[in-house]
Amino acid sequence: MTEQRFSRQSVHTIGLIGLGLIAGSFSLALQASRKSRYRFVGYSRKAENREASLARGLVHDVVPSIAELTACCDVIMIAVPMLAMPDVLAELAHHVRPDSIITDAGSVKGSFVAACEAAGLDMRQVVPGHPIAGTEKSGVAAGFAELYRGRRVVLTPHKQTSHQATEVVMDLWQACGAEVDMMAVEQHDRVLAATSHLPHMLAFALVDTLITRESDEQVFRYAAGGFKDFSRIASSDPVMWRDIALANKTAVLDAMRDLQTHFDALIAKIENDDGEAIVQTFANARDRRDDWLESFLNSRQ
Amino acid sequence: MTEQRFSRQSVHTIGLIGLGLIAGSFSLALQASRKSRYRFVGYSRKAENREASLARGLVHDVVPSIAELTACCDVIMIAVPMLAMPDVLAELAHHVRPDSIITDAGSVKGSFVAACEAAGLDMRQVVPGHPIAGTEKSGVAAGFAELYRGRRVVLTPHKQTSHQATEVVMDLWQACGAEVDMMAVEQHDRVLAATSHLPHMLAFALVDTLITRESDEQVFRYAAGGFKDFSRIASSDPVMWRDIALANKTAVLDAMRDLQTHFDALIAKIENDDGEAIVQTFANARDRRDDWLESFLNSRQ
Repeated sequence: MTEQRFSRQSVHTIGLIGLGLIAGSFSLALQASRKSRYRFVGYSRKAENREASLARGLVHDVVPSIAELTACCDVIMIAVPMLAMPDVLAELAHHVRPDSIITDAGSVKGSFVAACEAAGLDMRQVVPGHPIAGTEKSGVAAGFAELYRGRRVVLTPHKQTSHQATEVVMDLWQACGAEVDMMAVEQHDRVLAATSHLPHMLAFALVDTLITRESDEQVFRYAAGGFKDFSRIASSDPVMWRDIALANKTAVLDAMRDLQTHFDALIAKIENDDGEAIVQTFANARDRRDDWLESFLNSRQ
Repeated sequence: MTEQRFSRQSVHTIGLIGLGLIAGSFSLALQASRKSRYRFVGYSRKAENREASLARGLVHDVVPSIAELTACCDVIMIAVPMLAMPDVLAELAHHVRPDSIITDAGSVKGSFVAACEAAGLDMRQVVPGHPIAGTEKSGVAAGFAELYRGRRVVLTPHKQTSHQATEVVMDLWQACGAEVDMMAVEQHDRVLAATSHLPHMLAFALVDTLITRESDEQVFRYAAGGFKDFSRIASSDPVMWRDIALANKTAVLDAMRDLQTHFDALIAKIENDDGEAIVQTFANARDRRDDWLESFLNSRQ
């Protein structure tokens, strides 16, 4: 077997394991792209999700098992919660063809790679990926073709991953309208711990603090509009976020302890009535955040 | 002098000290109300703000000093940053008529009352207040008549405050479309420390952590949409929020330490791989936040 077994031309059928927001939007985006010529086959544990996906046109066909999906697919996209990955990968490893490409959309890459290795998969055919996109919505009904337009997708190829396989997956994401970046697994998990996982931990901790501190009525009666925005992400799926916190445990804990250090420092500035240092911290945060927002909005135009 | 000196019928001229979002919206809302019959007089330290307020119709007249404003006004609304309050109140105390009503819109009520007492004001004529409303915008151009519609305004009358004076101020806020609640000063400052001041301290600390931890490019390149919402309040005015942190120091520090305790507990749950406890914390936060959001949205309809 050489690396030449993977090529753009040989991709005809794409399999989706998990039929929620991420996989559904991936399929709809590719179907909408001008270059589209793929057949989509879907698998979900729940028969009702399989039927709903067919009805919505997310897939052209569904199968009742991972074994049947692996038999017929050239590219397999795994989009299930992090802690469901090991079981899916173990099943996949029993049936996968040597010329299929396996990719995923999980929020943590270190644990995905570890689970692939534990399942005994040939890492040459595995392209770990993570689209930085999503909404609080989930499920078969949530997907839409524009989710990835202008968003970033990070691929973290393993040292054994075939270069050709990586290029095939990159092409698919670019056809969805996404911008594809390459990162090392460890770098991805550290950066995302700070920019995505930490804000979620904070939002959950804030609401947890408020509801145990004051009566609900007091807290929420006097919560202004800012709190609504701030706490939006505390309405995210608890199981998905437990999975992420545990799958990326080391980097998440590191980011949380960093936040504690900065929060402690702010407490000390307030204790010492150090108005100048407080203004400096706040102004710096505001300026950097505003700079970022401007470039974020520009990049979305 | 009896309390009867204060009555709805005797309010003809309303003075605004500070001509930003809060005072401007107060004036526009009252001018738009069907019951409106007031003349508005404005004062700001900056001549350009006075002129712009006249031009925008926020006020009917402007004066170049607090002395002149106090001479002609039956109700005086003070809407300046917290740490500017003591100077304004000291000046006011030299000139105020005994039949004027003084009220304010400051975010912290304990420090406002202390500053009134330090200035030697007669507390019978002082009605401390706090509208729970605002945007990140500020300045003469920011005010709009609908800001207070359906929002809560908390009044925290002093034990000496005239009941009639409180009723006059309550009437004005209700004419703006607001719902008026009464609270003790200490209760107000404790509840708002949790529901408003703490989220701001957290948002500033989060952005502070991210920008010192990773390169700006890394942080903001991979910040997803959730971060944008979460950090919106980190774009608030640094001086205003320094003032609030220091003016409500005891209650703010108490809320911050509470958050630390809950954040520590979440760290411990992740360290111990206690998935069940993590899901319980997250699900509880989500459920209570969703319940609140539903009633918030209903109350805004």
